[in-house]
Amino acid sequence: MNIQLDSQGRLKHFLGIEGLKRELLIEILDIAASLIQVSEKAVKKVPLLRGKTVVNLFFEPSTRTRTTFELAAKRLSADVLNFNISSSSTSKGETLLDMLNNLEAMHCDMFVVRHDEAGAPFFMAQHVPEHISIVNAGDGRHEHPTQAMLDMFTIRQHKGEFHNLKVAIVGDILHSRVARSQIFALTTLGAAEVRIIAPRTLMPKGIEDMGVKVFDRLKAGLQDVDVVIMLRIQRERMRSALLPSEQEYFQYYGLTEDMLAQAHPDAIVMHPGPINRGVEIESSVADGSRSVILQQVSNGIAVRMAVMAMVLGRIDKPLETAKDSLV
Amino acid sequence: MNIQLDSQGRLKHFLGIEGLKRELLIEILDIAASLIQVSEKAVKKVPLLRGKTVVNLFFEPSTRTRTTFELAAKRLSADVLNFNISSSSTSKGETLLDMLNNLEAMHCDMFVVRHDEAGAPFFMAQHVPEHISIVNAGDGRHEHPTQAMLDMFTIRQHKGEFHNLKVAIVGDILHSRVARSQIFALTTLGAAEVRIIAPRTLMPKGIEDMGVKVFDRLKAGLQDVDVVIMLRIQRERMRSALLPSEQEYFQYYGLTEDMLAQAHPDAIVMHPGPINRGVEIESSVADGSRSVILQQVSNGIAVRMAVMAMVLGRIDKPLETAKDSLV
Amino acid sequence: MNIQLDSQGRLKHFLGIEGLKRELLIEILDIAASLIQVSEKAVKKVPLLRGKTVVNLFFEPSTRTRTTFELAAKRLSADVLNFNISSSSTSKGETLLDMLNNLEAMHCDMFVVRHDEAGAPFFMAQHVPEHISIVNAGDGRHEHPTQAMLDMFTIRQHKGEFHNLKVAIVGDILHSRVARSQIFALTTLGAAEVRIIAPRTLMPKGIEDMGVKVFDRLKAGLQDVDVVIMLRIQRERMRSALLPSEQEYFQYYGLTEDMLAQAHPDAIVMHPGPINRGVEIESSVADGSRSVILQQVSNGIAVRMAVMAMVLGRIDKPLETAKDSLV
Repeated sequence: MNIQLDSQGRLKHFLGIEGLKRELLIEILDIAASLIQVSEKAVKKVPLLRGKTVVNLFFEPSTRTRTTFELAAKRLSADVLNFNISSSSTSKGETLLDMLNNLEAMHCDMFVVRHDEAGAPFFMAQHVPEHISIVNAGDGRHEHPTQAMLDMFTIRQHKGEFHNLKVAIVGDILHSRVARSQIFALTTLGAAEVRIIAPRTLMPKGIEDMGVKVFDRLKAGLQDVDVVIMLRIQRERMRSALLPSEQEYFQYYGLTEDMLAQAHPDAIVMHPGPINRGVEIESSVADGSRSVILQQVSNGIAVRMAVMAMVLGRIDKPLETAKDSLV
Repeated sequence: MNIQLDSQGRLKHFLGIEGLKRELLIEILDIAASLIQVSEKAVKKVPLLRGKTVVNLFFEPSTRTRTTFELAAKRLSADVLNFNISSSSTSKGETLLDMLNNLEAMHCDMFVVRHDEAGAPFFMAQHVPEHISIVNAGDGRHEHPTQAMLDMFTIRQHKGEFHNLKVAIVGDILHSRVARSQIFALTTLGAAEVRIIAPRTLMPKGIEDMGVKVFDRLKAGLQDVDVVIMLRIQRERMRSALLPSEQEYFQYYGLTEDMLAQAHPDAIVMHPGPINRGVEIESSVADGSRSVILQQVSNGIAVRMAVMAMVLGRIDKPLETAKDSLV
Repeated sequence: MNIQLDSQGRLKHFLGIEGLKRELLIEILDIAASLIQVSEKAVKKVPLLRGKTVVNLFFEPSTRTRTTFELAAKRLSADVLNFNISSSSTSKGETLLDMLNNLEAMHCDMFVVRHDEAGAPFFMAQHVPEHISIVNAGDGRHEHPTQAMLDMFTIRQHKGEFHNLKVAIVGDILHSRVARSQIFALTTLGAAEVRIIAPRTLMPKGIEDMGVKVFDRLKAGLQDVDVVIMLRIQRERMRSALLPSEQEYFQYYGLTEDMLAQAHPDAIVMHPGPINRGVEIESSVADGSRSVILQQVSNGIAVRMAVMAMVLGRIDKPLETAKDSLV
């Protein structure tokens, strides 16, 4: 039994990619593809979540991710409440539950949760009543599933099927919930090869068990890949001596034009943003013709709209372009 | 002349329970009862305040109360502006008036006001033009009338008529605007007996004049009551030596299963939230079958919707369930 | 080529009054006049920007101005996102561009920008794609064009045509983006005489080149004027010794009843707010019959609605009052 699914196997919560079937991931991508048009219309609205109340519960600050969820919810015509909560004020599970119970009693329909503790969204999903859905917007070092799905969307947009693809993920794998979700998604979707490139201090032990190939040299790891996914460096890690200086990191793991030349000539470059220019990526690469970084952002709105409409049971196949389904 | 009423005796502002007639309180409860359904529908919206601008003016921080007003306003289809203002920046009445005048000039329709000074909403009601309504969301130690009305709603929901009821209010009566509003509401609605249970340091002098019975022992005060209303303890009071330690307070005034056994077997337990578990109430009581604490929260949305729609003259009898009145 | 205009000479961005033609300013005023009714209706909404996403990007804190833009956008039925950004976090132009690019990728339609650096909105207008509009909500000491247009609106409302008018602007001209925009607007609209009244320390060198008459005595400057525009004093300037004490400033440049007697008997008194009572203006004047300060605030909503609807190409002539154009 996967807590993310209802009795008929439909998405009920979206907590992580781990354990989800290929068909469901494809369904998310297909529904998202049909929602891309909404943000491109003159009137960027569909009534799928009209009269629903979506609560952004952010225990970690993130203007950027919160904004994309807020926009996605508004384009689905939902009402949105934003809570920025310092974790300290809800350190006791008891208090977190009281807060949840209160928001439930107000007849909220969905909680979009970011939390610095891995598993917090799962804990919440275990404790909310049946009509409420939880969407994980990043929990500790665990998962960030909507980010991974927008990445998959972007890869499929440019490369089509996954089974021929070699994908490299570069950077601080150890602390990255994004990388974990991406690995689950890529292996589930059948990517030919998933490579992990990181300095040894930032490589989790036993990562090979996730079905990836490990490299500690960027040049070797990028050889012939079709997709290069750069991770964001948290500058805090530098201070804690897990990472060398920015200059040194860039020298060994920064994606330059030269390094990118190792990859397949049609390789695309991705990054979850915000970019640290000159640290993990050279500006000319970030802004170059092979960068799809801003398309990731656009796709993120559609993917989040798809997930939010799916978990509340408001859509289960791609939105038809028929006018009557749009407002 | 009650400033809360218009020339035809209809609710114009909602500043306090004191001075309002029984019929009007019943009308609020009846209209709220008809609005409960709105939050239970798939599309939680009625167009009663469509195109109206509601301003939350919070001079005291309160995410929780502000959220319930924001949700209530949005479910009435109003536009909502939130202002969190430190009292210091508007310490001069002159500046408060300038702020009011400016918001009026922007054609705002309603101010929901929380202020640490008793009387601030009354002062504002005296100074706004006729088309603007003030709703008190808690002022100093004066009143918190929507909280009292949601409590009355919850009591009526469980107990029916008021005239047979014995109700006990337990805790820091001295500093509690909630208790004051509850006492006015209960006596106006004809409760058989209203009891006040508090340590002597937290019992206002002359409170008997409000028509209540005073107890300083919890056990004696709870004897045979139908409703137990626990007040929230402000931890700041502990530091100021008005209260003993949390442990000691809980020992004498905390609502435990044992203490609750003194009350009528069908007694319900209420609390305005947020709960301090193990300080004013035992967890097993807060979460037990006789607790209606979360129903209070749900009812709060409907009661606030009722008050907001009433003061703007958009509803004066229960909403019919006919489909055409709902959007 | 004016970056503010599209190829057909229509308003595309609204960055400053400088360089705009009289006809365009009149068009803004006429469209704003037709939108005044929206805020006076029971349902304060028009669907002109329905499904559009307006982003308030405030790099300088300003609850007041942000609120008027937010209200204007909501009354146009737009979705609004608010960002309050400390300038320090985006000190590098590169990062500002990355932020812009990201918001563009989310299919936002308009950025309302306040920034402490003159030219920031211009810089942004140069870098956004064609379908995005920038509205300047105040940049450094450069311009604050919507403020100037709401002032022009208010003057026209009371005085009709501009060509007979003598207008005095009083206060800290040196640091005032408002004054600069007002001067451009007044001279473009053909005011007979624009006077600048300020202490020498607060008078920009060469200001006469803007077509104004300079006075350093309030009494002489106010002689026979039809409009008195007081500027807001930034108290920070006092500390930096550019200004004397508040008392001394008020003595020489404060607008008292006595001083106002120098002006034309029908002269109106204006101020962009918030007022420092007893510093730049006497309370009895601010609240007196010749003060139009609160009308400026009301007009501000209509003017901002006009500009926002115009730059997105949603209106190019006054809104007809026909019912079908309103929702």
